[in-house]
This record gives sequence, structure tokens and C-alpha cells, in this order.
Amino acid sequence: LQFLKCLLFIYFRSSCSWRVRIALALKGISYDLVPVNLLKDGGQQFSAEFKAVNPMQQVPALKIDGITLSQSLAIIHYLEDTRPNPRLLPQDLKKRAQVRMIADHIVSGIQPLQNLSILKQMGEKKMEWAQNCIASGFQGTAHCCDLLLIAALAVQLVVSQKLFCFCRFKVDMGPYPTITRINKALLELEAFKVSHPSRQPDTPAELRA
Amino acid sequence: LQFLKCLLFIYFRSSCSWRVRIALALKGISYDLVPVNLLKDGGQQFSAEFKAVNPMQQVPALKIDGITLSQSLAIIHYLEDTRPNPRLLPQDLKKRAQVRMIADHIVSGIQPLQNLSILKQMGEKKMEWAQNCIASGFQGTAHCCDLLLIAALAVQLVVSQKLFCFCRFKVDMGPYPTITRINKALLELEAFKVSHPSRQPDTPAELRA
Repeated sequence: LQFLKCLLFIYFRSSCSWRVRIALALKGISYDLVPVNLLKDGGQQFSAEFKAVNPMQQVPALKIDGITLSQSLAIIHYLEDTRPNPRLLPQDLKKRAQVRMIADHIVSGIQPLQNLSILKQMGEKKMEWAQNCIASGFQGTAHCCDLLLIAALAVQLVVSQKLFCFCRFKVDMGPYPTITRINKALLELEAFKVSHPSRQPDTPAELRA
Repeated sequence: LQFLKCLLFIYFRSSCSWRVRIALALKGISYDLVPVNLLKDGGQQFSAEFKAVNPMQQVPALKIDGITLSQSLAIIHYLEDTRPNPRLLPQDLKKRAQVRMIADHIVSGIQPLQNLSILKQMGEKKMEWAQNCIASGFQGTAHCCDLLLIAALAVQLVVSQKLFCFCRFKVDMGPYPTITRINKALLELEAFKVSHPSRQPDTPAELRA
């Protein structure tokens, strides 16, 4: 039933898109992939065609079960609610809350501060700004990771991989050995490898693994 | 058993703190409140004393059931998991996913772009920047609200009230009648009134309701 397959709209470099690909891979859900180039044509996410798919005009967006969802964590929560095997969140309610806390911290406290529109405004201070945002965000995260170190963290922490893969902001990871260790372990997992930004259909040749 | 009461760390003006107060009020959970002044003494959230409470150095933080949680949506999810009556999220999984999508969009796509550190960097362009962020964020949200219009949205939409209460950024709400209507209805609810920023112990006299 090919036409029932999920449809995932992504940009290869978008770390939120990668996060959803990882969750889909971990849960063994097959999907068709539609690349949306965020830079080409003034941003293909702003096209009328894509706006009809996702009025939020952002990737990732997932067409699934007759609805279209955006926002990576909302998508992952829906997959967890409807396809619980394997579980990505801990069953223990306190641990689950702590995982959500770290995830929300990364998604709302670290990531948006380095988005394209803000970096543009920062001009020459761009690198320094991004490094400071990430470093101060990691300080809180690192402490919690030391306390937790649970597998479910996997899905969320990948947002930090933007830094590792593309080394865009050259953040000194020396002070965050736990985050570095978790990240290294995650990158060994098959679900992380197949979904990696360097291996997507829209990845430019020079950035391919 | 007074010592088992939750302890909520807030700043009166923080809209994320308000969001948690609303959830606590809707669920009828009593708590003691500890104000943390984000501007005084270079930011009391950076003090060693508060860092011991919440290494993320942010409000809101909730001490509950022997753990300390931060991040407003993670806190609300935990309350929903452990104190399900009354429910704030819809039971229908698709509607629940759509509520989460809107909430995540507001919390990670609109709110962080007007945080203190970014507004400082924007200098004279501050107002224009904030207005644009909010307006473009609302465009996506408004579309979804038209589709949904469900009570559970209540908890999340309050972030937008920062705008209404303090009129800080003077956003033209003309194009968003649904959001305006929902907001007005919410402000009539007792849980929203008692938790309002203008009625907190640390609200300065001139901003009190």
C-alpha cells in the first residue's frame, strides 16, 4: 500500500529534520522523503505549494495518518503515542519528565538562538554569538546529562550534532565530556547513520559521507 | 502536610512562569511561590543559591515529588502524566499532536526570538524585530487555531499574552481575530486571573492589577 506511506519534508542540513528521521528509523517506520531547499528560490518553504502542505512554512513536516504535523518534538511524541514499539521515552514518569526537560531546553533554549535570521542580524559577531549561546546552553544540559545518561536522550541530543557534523560554530567541547561521549555513542547506531545529514538525497556532493 | 507542597520558582513577568501557574491552577494543585528577580543583582537566576536548585539557571522551576523540573512544557507534561484530572491535552491522539505542534511552535519558534539577550543585540531595531518575529509566528499559528479551537490550547497560547498584558511590542493583532478571541476568552477564566502576572507577590506596585 505504497500510497499510505508517510511523507517527510526535510532539508538535509536541518537538525530538526534529522531528529525526526532518527525517530522514524528507530521505530522502523518507512517513509518517502521530499527535500525542501531552505536557501534556494528565496526559500522553497515559503512557496505556495509548500504552504499548502504546512502553513507553518517550516521543515520538518510529516504527512501521516491523514494529518500533517510539524515541529520535530510534536512529531516524535505523536509517533511515540501511536507506534510505541520501541519506546523512545522512559516509562518512569520522573525520568520521562527529565528527558522532556532536556529536549525542550535544547529545542527552545539553544537551537532558536542560532537560526538563520538571527545570525544574519549578528553580522561579524556571528560566530561568537553562536558559541556563547551553545556553551551557556550546554552548561545546564551537561549537568542534567551527568544525572541521567539514559538511552531516550538519544532522540533529543542530536540537535547538538549540528555542531559536530558541520563544525559550523567551532564550539570547544572540552568542558562537556558527557555530551561528547553520548554523541559519539549515538553516532555508532544504525538509525543515526542512515538518517545522517551527509547521506540525504538533497545533500550536495561535496558534503556527502 | 505543608512540607510536601510544591515549590514554584518564578519571575512575575516571565510568561513561561505564568503558563505553569495556569496549569497548576487548572489542576487545583497548591504550591508555595519563590520569586527570582531576573534583572536584580545581575540576575538572581545566576546566583549559586539558585543554581543549586536549577542548574539550567532559568525560571520557571518546580520542586515536586522529590525532583526539580524546569522548562514550562516539560513541567506541564509531568503534571498531566501524574495529575490527569482535569486533562489539559485532548485524548484524541491526532488532536493532541496538533496541540503539541502549536505549543512547540510558540515556545521554540516565537518566544526565544524575543528573549532579553537577543533584544539587547538588536538595539534600536528591537521593536521592529520583535513585531516581525511575532507576526510571522502568528501567521502559522492562526491558521492552525482556525482548524482546532480546542480548550487544551489554553495552556499554551498564554505565551502570547505577554504581548497583551504588557503591550511591549505593540503587535497589530488585526490579522489574527481567532487568536484575539481565544485570548479574550482565556482571560475570563479564574485560573488565568489568579495566576496573572499583575497579581504575583513580586509584581511591582505600578504594574499591579
